[in-house]
Amino acid sequence: MSWHRKHLLDIESLTAGELTTVLDTAREFKAVGERDIKKVPALQGKTVVNFFVEPSTRTRVSFELSAKRLSADIINFSADASSFQKGESLKDTARTLEALNADIIVIRHKAAGAPHFLARFLNAHVVNAGDGAHEHPTQALLDVFTIREKKGNIAGLNVTILGDILFSRVARSNIWALRKLGANVTLCGPSTLVPRVFEQMGCRVTYDLDEALANADVINLLRIQHERQRKSMFPSIGEYAHLFGLNRTRLAKAKPNALIMHPGPMNRGVEIKSELADCDRAVILEQVTNGIAVRMAVLYLVNGGNADEMNA
Amino acid sequence: MSWHRKHLLDIESLTAGELTTVLDTAREFKAVGERDIKKVPALQGKTVVNFFVEPSTRTRVSFELSAKRLSADIINFSADASSFQKGESLKDTARTLEALNADIIVIRHKAAGAPHFLARFLNAHVVNAGDGAHEHPTQALLDVFTIREKKGNIAGLNVTILGDILFSRVARSNIWALRKLGANVTLCGPSTLVPRVFEQMGCRVTYDLDEALANADVINLLRIQHERQRKSMFPSIGEYAHLFGLNRTRLAKAKPNALIMHPGPMNRGVEIKSELADCDRAVILEQVTNGIAVRMAVLYLVNGGNADEMNA
Amino acid sequence: MSWHRKHLLDIESLTAGELTTVLDTAREFKAVGERDIKKVPALQGKTVVNFFVEPSTRTRVSFELSAKRLSADIINFSADASSFQKGESLKDTARTLEALNADIIVIRHKAAGAPHFLARFLNAHVVNAGDGAHEHPTQALLDVFTIREKKGNIAGLNVTILGDILFSRVARSNIWALRKLGANVTLCGPSTLVPRVFEQMGCRVTYDLDEALANADVINLLRIQHERQRKSMFPSIGEYAHLFGLNRTRLAKAKPNALIMHPGPMNRGVEIKSELADCDRAVILEQVTNGIAVRMAVLYLVNGGNADEMNA
Repeated sequence: MSWHRKHLLDIESLTAGELTTVLDTAREFKAVGERDIKKVPALQGKTVVNFFVEPSTRTRVSFELSAKRLSADIINFSADASSFQKGESLKDTARTLEALNADIIVIRHKAAGAPHFLARFLNAHVVNAGDGAHEHPTQALLDVFTIREKKGNIAGLNVTILGDILFSRVARSNIWALRKLGANVTLCGPSTLVPRVFEQMGCRVTYDLDEALANADVINLLRIQHERQRKSMFPSIGEYAHLFGLNRTRLAKAKPNALIMHPGPMNRGVEIKSELADCDRAVILEQVTNGIAVRMAVLYLVNGGNADEMNA
Repeated sequence: MSWHRKHLLDIESLTAGELTTVLDTAREFKAVGERDIKKVPALQGKTVVNFFVEPSTRTRVSFELSAKRLSADIINFSADASSFQKGESLKDTARTLEALNADIIVIRHKAAGAPHFLARFLNAHVVNAGDGAHEHPTQALLDVFTIREKKGNIAGLNVTILGDILFSRVARSNIWALRKLGANVTLCGPSTLVPRVFEQMGCRVTYDLDEALANADVINLLRIQHERQRKSMFPSIGEYAHLFGLNRTRLAKAKPNALIMHPGPMNRGVEIKSELADCDRAVILEQVTNGIAVRMAVLYLVNGGNADEMNA
Repeated sequence: MSWHRKHLLDIESLTAGELTTVLDTAREFKAVGERDIKKVPALQGKTVVNFFVEPSTRTRVSFELSAKRLSADIINFSADASSFQKGESLKDTARTLEALNADIIVIRHKAAGAPHFLARFLNAHVVNAGDGAHEHPTQALLDVFTIREKKGNIAGLNVTILGDILFSRVARSNIWALRKLGANVTLCGPSTLVPRVFEQMGCRVTYDLDEALANADVINLLRIQHERQRKSMFPSIGEYAHLFGLNRTRLAKAKPNALIMHPGPMNRGVEIKSELADCDRAVILEQVTNGIAVRMAVLYLVNGGNADEMNA
């Protein structure tokens, strides 16, 4: 159990051992959220900056609560309010945040690679909270954390990811994490949104929904990312729901105890029938809860916390 | 002195005893705001979410400070920034907030009944910070707290509420609280804004301002709620000021030591002559100060704080 | 070493001794930012309100972090979200903030004199975070703090301020501070932006850039304030860069170890060649870091902290 990285930029470059270290550390921190007093002093006196150049209330709030539970000070710095309007570069803004003694900068940015760019010249720790259509590592970590908690292990599981894979950083990070930990990953969706090139990441790609769901241990439904599609990739929302929306009949193809996952926010009636979102196989809200534990673990580890000595 | 409710949704369903418990608890907390170190550890490690789907800086800031003085962590989650833009339902957003381990959700919403709706399926405590034209319970509590502090008691007092009663959640909550605690309530304003149906709540309704102010112990001036009026209910702002604005001549009809109250923000020169807003009978700023003590009491009590054992 | 002021409204009214007290106090606080746990309990239980009626993310964040490092509670209250939209006056809003038990109100406002106006009727401490084109005292304090740290002393130094002096509160506050502490101040820029009236503040005014830079110990480059110029005062940005932008040739006129300063955000390629912004003579990021120490000192001192007894 070890962690020696200064940043969390992506899942692609992590080893299975590093992934496991994050998950094990998060398991310890999850217990903190269930206590009466949900705080540990691990990052007391440290400053975390939520540097969100693309809006995301959920992810921002999750990082904010994670930092507060670690007793850090946290500052929200969003792009609309920032100096970008005055023409300052991303680099200068990030260096300014660092000059404010930020220990950790959590960045959400619409450009793929923005966190890696910052990490090259900052002394502060950088955590990627989603960069364009590239990666969203903490989302993948909370997803595999939730799967492991429910299924005991990741290796050998059949995980089906359904929907808009092409534009999804969530899919990309999940595929890396699941493959590294030994899961079998199947991708399915409209052919325009699930290109065969993903087979090179070790995934099975199919456009036959029944085949995709057969024997699945986990079904991860992605949100249709209207905002990232430059042109319409499928006829209509109604047709997507008809062809790929999860309903009882389709769910019956999966294993009887298959988990239903969704990174949120859900389009009820599109990706998933509303009744299924609330059924006992859906772990969608547990994913949210686990997001805090996972982000606490990430903030703790990049800051130099020792996974072996953590006594949350 | 007792409190057994999980939520604070309205004043209508509270007993006089419960109202008194909140007021007595708030009196203890008021002393905290006068100390050099304005903090108690009562909610340390708890998470409060300010879930404001309708903007209100004053009420949000008051809850934010109240939570901080109780040593809670507080997260602001406003609608503009939220997932509503992405089509998520109120229910799913609220459940997501709860899944983030929120202990208390403070909700402001333009739809009457939104807090009651959330309370039906959330495990978190729900506090109504204003729902449409329905209720604004903490405003009423801080108003009666202020009256009791100044007058010693509520029972038997003559309280006149002046202005836009029809669209006012402040009026509605005040009427419930004052009637339950034994005050005589008179409502006055343009007939289009003060319907006779309020007589069923035990109030006197009059359109004669002199009659309304005669023998008043308290005059509570409501803000003209432009934003809640779907059509013009009176000729003009100038005419409202002329017919119903409080001035020295009109004030002379009330008892010599009558209190002047206003929930803010004031329209000086409309509801009230500017000089009266600053006179020694106006307790408008004390209402603001008392709002913190009352909201501390509410957050403390719904979270299970024992009113008898509180040692602020 | 002493401080007896309740507010920090401007630099103009401070004595050299008071300026030195702030700088000495800030030096103590700077050490806090270099510790592992960057917090002192000096303002524990105190409430600071960031009352920003004109947006400024950098200054707001700097005050926010300063207050947090002093263990104060801090509330952000910005104009867009405030009651101003509802027609409330600045005075009533400020009094409401005070009624919320605010101990210190940090105000940024587009109107010159707004902080002085508030200070006349508030009991809370008022700190000017920039008022129109009038003063920006904490910016000047962090600038002279940075100069003193690098040069050992202010008296006798040649400081050249370059650019848009007319509309710059940063220039105005810097001139007061530098003159009081004994520096020689030279102002240079387009004649439309550097009126001769500044000679009355004890400055040398020149429109010859070589002359302005000759023998300079410090070059302070101001941002071109597009937003404060009601009409174009110079032909174009490109022409400004050509005539007044700092480049290697021009820098060579100054002393070999001259400091390059900029209050940020920079227009790289306009006020300064990009390479110079990153050279070892530029102290632009150190200014940002020092801003926190200086603001901690200001919050501490106005609140009654004893400069002699401070034990950060």
